[in-house]
Amino acid sequence: MNLYASRIQMVRAFMKEAGLTVYFVPTADPHGSEYICDHFKLREYLSGFTGSAGSLFITATEVGLYTDGRYFIQAEAELLGSGITLYRQDTKGCPPLLEKLASLLPENSTLGFDGRLVSFAFLEALQKELCGRTVTFQDKELPSSLWPDRPAISFQPAYRLADCYSGKSVTAKLSEIRSALSSLSPASTITARHRSICTGKETQEAEAYLITALDEIAWLFNIRGNDIACNPVAFAYALLTQNDAFLYLAKEALSPELLEVLASEQVTVRSYDAIYTDIKTLSTKTILLDSKRVNYSLLSSLPKESKVLDYVGPIQTAKAIKNETELKNLAKAHIKDGVAMTKFMYWLKKNISSMEITEYSAAEYLYSLREKGDGYLEPSFETICAYNANAAMMHYTATKESCATLSPQGFLLVDSGGQYFEGTTDVTRTYVLGDVPMLWKKHYTAVLRGMLALTNAKFLSGCRGVNLDILARGPLWQMGLDYRCGTGHGVGYLLNVHEAPNGFRWRISADRNDSCVLNKGMVTTNEPGVYIENSHGIRIENELVCNEGERNEYGQFLYFTTLTMTPIDLDAVLAEDLTKAEREQLNAYHKTVYETLLPYMTKEEATWLLQATREI
Amino acid sequence: MNLYASRIQMVRAFMKEAGLTVYFVPTADPHGSEYICDHFKLREYLSGFTGSAGSLFITATEVGLYTDGRYFIQAEAELLGSGITLYRQDTKGCPPLLEKLASLLPENSTLGFDGRLVSFAFLEALQKELCGRTVTFQDKELPSSLWPDRPAISFQPAYRLADCYSGKSVTAKLSEIRSALSSLSPASTITARHRSICTGKETQEAEAYLITALDEIAWLFNIRGNDIACNPVAFAYALLTQNDAFLYLAKEALSPELLEVLASEQVTVRSYDAIYTDIKTLSTKTILLDSKRVNYSLLSSLPKESKVLDYVGPIQTAKAIKNETELKNLAKAHIKDGVAMTKFMYWLKKNISSMEITEYSAAEYLYSLREKGDGYLEPSFETICAYNANAAMMHYTATKESCATLSPQGFLLVDSGGQYFEGTTDVTRTYVLGDVPMLWKKHYTAVLRGMLALTNAKFLSGCRGVNLDILARGPLWQMGLDYRCGTGHGVGYLLNVHEAPNGFRWRISADRNDSCVLNKGMVTTNEPGVYIENSHGIRIENELVCNEGERNEYGQFLYFTTLTMTPIDLDAVLAEDLTKAEREQLNAYHKTVYETLLPYMTKEEATWLLQATREI
Repeated sequence: MNLYASRIQMVRAFMKEAGLTVYFVPTADPHGSEYICDHFKLREYLSGFTGSAGSLFITATEVGLYTDGRYFIQAEAELLGSGITLYRQDTKGCPPLLEKLASLLPENSTLGFDGRLVSFAFLEALQKELCGRTVTFQDKELPSSLWPDRPAISFQPAYRLADCYSGKSVTAKLSEIRSALSSLSPASTITARHRSICTGKETQEAEAYLITALDEIAWLFNIRGNDIACNPVAFAYALLTQNDAFLYLAKEALSPELLEVLASEQVTVRSYDAIYTDIKTLSTKTILLDSKRVNYSLLSSLPKESKVLDYVGPIQTAKAIKNETELKNLAKAHIKDGVAMTKFMYWLKKNISSMEITEYSAAEYLYSLREKGDGYLEPSFETICAYNANAAMMHYTATKESCATLSPQGFLLVDSGGQYFEGTTDVTRTYVLGDVPMLWKKHYTAVLRGMLALTNAKFLSGCRGVNLDILARGPLWQMGLDYRCGTGHGVGYLLNVHEAPNGFRWRISADRNDSCVLNKGMVTTNEPGVYIENSHGIRIENELVCNEGERNEYGQFLYFTTLTMTPIDLDAVLAEDLTKAEREQLNAYHKTVYETLLPYMTKEEATWLLQATREI
Repeated sequence: MNLYASRIQMVRAFMKEAGLTVYFVPTADPHGSEYICDHFKLREYLSGFTGSAGSLFITATEVGLYTDGRYFIQAEAELLGSGITLYRQDTKGCPPLLEKLASLLPENSTLGFDGRLVSFAFLEALQKELCGRTVTFQDKELPSSLWPDRPAISFQPAYRLADCYSGKSVTAKLSEIRSALSSLSPASTITARHRSICTGKETQEAEAYLITALDEIAWLFNIRGNDIACNPVAFAYALLTQNDAFLYLAKEALSPELLEVLASEQVTVRSYDAIYTDIKTLSTKTILLDSKRVNYSLLSSLPKESKVLDYVGPIQTAKAIKNETELKNLAKAHIKDGVAMTKFMYWLKKNISSMEITEYSAAEYLYSLREKGDGYLEPSFETICAYNANAAMMHYTATKESCATLSPQGFLLVDSGGQYFEGTTDVTRTYVLGDVPMLWKKHYTAVLRGMLALTNAKFLSGCRGVNLDILARGPLWQMGLDYRCGTGHGVGYLLNVHEAPNGFRWRISADRNDSCVLNKGMVTTNEPGVYIENSHGIRIENELVCNEGERNEYGQFLYFTTLTMTPIDLDAVLAEDLTKAEREQLNAYHKTVYETLLPYMTKEEATWLLQATREI
């Protein structure tokens, strides 16, 4: 019997004993993290499917795996022989997950799941889908015997991020967030979701604030950790009131020094899991939390009499708006990052014809260059290094065993970034390795024009990403092309490379939390692209800081400045397709890149850089 | 005593007798029309304020008038001596109207109003603002003795719009809308507002559809009327079920021919007011209506057991999407309109230095030119003909008694349109009368660039006005300028010049119904502008039709074509501020204008037109 089929058999035996009609296994951790550590990869353990997104359901007669378009081919291969049905999300004939689950749950049936891995909002939506049928939700983890060699949760040492990096003390942050709690303004965020609405009142007050998102906790307490690869966070929960700040953190993660510092900041440290018992006896009446992020086990533990204010809390925006120190540091991080990227570009261009370079070895070389950066900690995500047709797959990952060898022709797309004490970076360049067809140059130039137009935007305060997205996408739309993703996302400060609530996207989507009003200090990527299946992929990505410009009778104007500091390969630019203003904008950028990076270049690199940043 | 103060005294006497704490008088008719006829100008009769928008409230001790920024100066003057307090909407310190009304209504008080003039949704919002207090809503018209010479409602003859103009028979429309009633899809419209929500269901069925908007009734029954100036509609209500179509229309408006035609289409005609009694005995269970448009008296008359589906109904979108016949006709209407506009431009340019021309006489001359158009019925709105600083007031109206005399210097802004059997037009041009400062030319050229960029948009199906607005506004924002209004609005077909649900606007606003997904066949104006107080105003406005372009793996692309057919004054264009592509776009437009209009020009006009549409 197939390994995974036998694991499913064991789940079914457990389900029978526990009286469960359906068992549901999402890809998640208790904090709603985008990336999860090995301990939580239960879906992968049971199904054999290794993709980063997917949901598994098991009934007595069917096992189904839902995943999205990025993984159809991979999932098909990995599920072979397991007896698991692949549900291709968002394709014709595939029912939405909630609808499917509801269809498997008749009157008086029972749904089982690990309540720490499912958000409260998800189950609430499922409840609606059940149209009044009585279904029991059973918060039940699978017995540990089912996964004998399950990796433990990693509780790596947490550490204090010094004020010279964070730019704001814990005391100041606590005070700022506490003050926000006393006058929550639901109308200020597009993603506000009310549970209890008191009409006729403009603002509301929360007595307690439950924080479960790891990056929000890291921001509030100026701590960083190492519990999820590429995301320097520590597993933790937090509960904030006007008088108390409780931080739930594993003993293993705490040094005596950190404990002492936190104590001096009036932060009470409790053990990681203690939140689940503490919450049951919460004495405050009104609690702020985001039911899309708080897991079912935790929210179900709240005393019945508590009143939930179901909003995205004030930390998210406070964190997204980088302070002056963070912005100054980010500029430094981007110079280090640019030095690595630029030396990589030089090395690539110089050696492409004379040396065997693979996608994998190129990525490794780039990692080694970033590591030389002072204050560099780790990559901010796994590097995408994709040659020609491979770059058309947006989430392609080369492995040592399976990767393309580069030739002196076509494009190499490199999307990478680093975690530095001075912040998080994310940059993409598409390099010309040799001959490139005219059509590819047309595509490249259109991508560049879109990137430049968005960078150049000047707009009134109140604008969101949906207002600006067409600037980046317009030149591609004019050619009948598009990219099937947003134009950009928020970036954390030594935190997650994908951060809410800012972004650039044209479709208004209630589910995504990336369309907030753009604000001074927000950092957002600008990364249009072209992806032609079986042919080539192009993406050019800079990070933008939002700044305040003039304020006049029309309002406050905002504009962007660029953090990213490395040349855009000119070898595929069709200068005649650019307007004069676009050429001037590009030349000005390259002049800054040259002048900024020159001190870090060898003599040979400097000579090459002058040419690579030439005026066009 | 001031005339209006004495009228207010009489209202107070009535209020006392009727036990009313507050009497509320909005500017409205029973159909939620944008423009109202004299019969409904009660607010003006009581307050003396003649502006097109405003709300009056009367208590035993205070009378207040709310109006918006367009009318502050005018209202101040007109209210002088009346004892009425002016509330300047949306200014600092001015409470929102609902909040103010709520503050005047303590526990057990009574609010009086004419229930036909207030939407159900307005009172529902007021109810929320009352925060649980018990306040009686008294639907009570003022006694007719209070307004002895009140003009009667005009019930002008209604007439059938032939199929060669409407492009679709009443039978076909009834069948199309009936079919939509059986599967309403709330998710399809951004403005959907649920009263009764059955979760877990994708579509809902309405047994009856209550239609009260005059242009929707006119569209559905292919009738036009003459009851509101510039809006060729007839006062009417309609109620549609799968088997019946009731049209409530005044006897005076009906000819025997029209009655016969309607009967042959299975339309039952009832008297205008009969809807208020008919609705009380409605036997269907589920009724579709829009509580923002349906008045309180009517909605309150519904049987208690009826279930209301509170959406914007399917007619609005069906009407906005012009059919092939309508589009072909519109092109013809815009040629006629362009002939008038172009002859006007010729006349203006030729005579500006030699003849006394005022804003008023220029507008009159333009009316006379439009009247020569075959199938022309009336203006689609009162012409705005505004010279230099006057044009900075967005809603300026010149009168014979008070208007500027034109000199051969500066700008004349002319915003006008016509109602033709072939459709409704709306066009603005800003004409150069002589010397113009360089800054004004900079502004003019930026407005033109924005207008061209929006016209040139190509975009994926799913886009709304909020996605495209920055194309028009971008060149102005780059200069730190803005206009304080949307970029464009939908236009009816021989109906209202302002039509929902399409438009261009950058702010997402739940209150405005003009941000729908743009669709093939929708007609929208494109009218960016610059308005510098006490100096000058510039607006260039074309009407755009949305068309389907290529459909490929990325989706359905859409693009615009221009209906408006008259030169854009080149005398203020700074050619060096335009890109090559923008110059080509403008030249191509002018080539079309020249070729299209040439047959209608005299020899002198033709010579001039060649120059006016020259390549730049």
